Amino acid sequence: MSVIHQDDEQAQMKMLAARRALEFVEPGMTVGLGSGSTATLWIKLLGERVRDHGLKIRAIASSEDSENLGRSYGIPFVTFEECSQLDLTVDGADEIAPRLALIKGGGGKLLREKIVASATKKFIVVADKSKSVDLLGKFPLPVEVIPMATPLVSNALRELGFIPRVRMQGTKQYVTDEGNLILDCSGLLIADPYSMAAKLDAIVGVVEHGLFLDMADLALVAEDGRVIERSI
Amino acid sequence: MSVIHQDDEQAQMKMLAARRALEFVEPGMTVGLGSGSTATLWIKLLGERVRDHGLKIRAIASSEDSENLGRSYGIPFVTFEECSQLDLTVDGADEIAPRLALIKGGGGKLLREKIVASATKKFIVVADKSKSVDLLGKFPLPVEVIPMATPLVSNALRELGFIPRVRMQGTKQYVTDEGNLILDCSGLLIADPYSMAAKLDAIVGVVEHGLFLDMADLALVAEDGRVIERSI
Repeated sequence: MSVIHQDDEQAQMKMLAARRALEFVEPGMTVGLGSGSTATLWIKLLGERVRDHGLKIRAIASSEDSENLGRSYGIPFVTFEECSQLDLTVDGADEIAPRLALIKGGGGKLLREKIVASATKKFIVVADKSKSVDLLGKFPLPVEVIPMATPLVSNALRELGFIPRVRMQGTKQYVTDEGNLILDCSGLLIADPYSMAAKLDAIVGVVEHGLFLDMADLALVAEDGRVIERSI
Repeated sequence: MSVIHQDDEQAQMKMLAARRALEFVEPGMTVGLGSGSTATLWIKLLGERVRDHGLKIRAIASSEDSENLGRSYGIPFVTFEECSQLDLTVDGADEIAPRLALIKGGGGKLLREKIVASATKKFIVVADKSKSVDLLGKFPLPVEVIPMATPLVSNALRELGFIPRVRMQGTKQYVTDEGNLILDCSGLLIADPYSMAAKLDAIVGVVEHGLFLDMADLALVAEDGRVIERSI
């Protein structure tokens, strides 16, 4: 019973944070839609504004699921060819550390999420308090890799101190939207995310990793029935 | 007539360099096979040794064309799962600068070429003298990008001083083996390749770029009927 109660409370906290994020949307904006449970709540709230209240926005999504959900409410979508800068993106995170350094990618969409985040003027993270950490890395860091290079990248990640594991989906390897694999890297608390990001960027065969640094401008963290705003 | 003569001479120089590279192969080695015209010559020479002289080696190729060519000579292939370190890789380059800094990827295979190069103990570049430069960048630097991020990456590359152009194949965009696009980046001589590589690595949406630094151990450069060895 207490577990169910906790889940209920967590869902309520996510909804609280998502609702607060809605206050940052203005008519005419081009908006980035994230992925995952909290982002999904937000897309639904945003979608209701568009469908029921005639809010005029355009959007780019970081996953097909999010785009389909947005379309179901009548949100119009554009591409980066049509619009190379977004006004606002709202997305969840798996961990939020000081300076709003994030780990994302638990849902496997980190590449597109990072592309969308990199193109946005204001990036707001929405989460419940369970995602707040002092040091990143308790949540295994997802690293997206070119399939043929997976054994090589695994070796390089082990040399950095991680325990990499190929993400599975049932009995098969999980394949990303771009046809790559994910290595979930545990066993290391990341003392210096900037240095680690540069090392990961330099590994041949790494497409992208789940460290989102200098991207988030604001975090909306729901805790005990209220939303705390954290900026950089 | 003089153009044909030049081409003949260049082909002869390539053959000369490829033949010299053969001297570095020892029985039992696992060998990386590059791509492009000079690498292709080398694969043929190596294949003849395997087919006609019983040379025992195993190989990993950086392109399907190279693998098919190797197989036609009876060269056995392995994957990085079976063998995560190669003894020797021989490949061409589009430009060779001091410290054996290279631009590769003119043939569009830079990602797999770089994966293979990164896994090799001894990486030998074979080329004719026309590839030797003081500064990299006269040859447009190929950058492999996630298709959806192409407009964003193009903007970032322009900010670095490049003129990026999407590589075409006839009237269609050239698509890499991994399903990505290539931006050929001209207009900038690269004074500090290390700094540039780090900047390119950090651009979200860049899968890999054609700067190969600290990878080549030896260059075999054919010039006026002889092969000059350049090391770091």
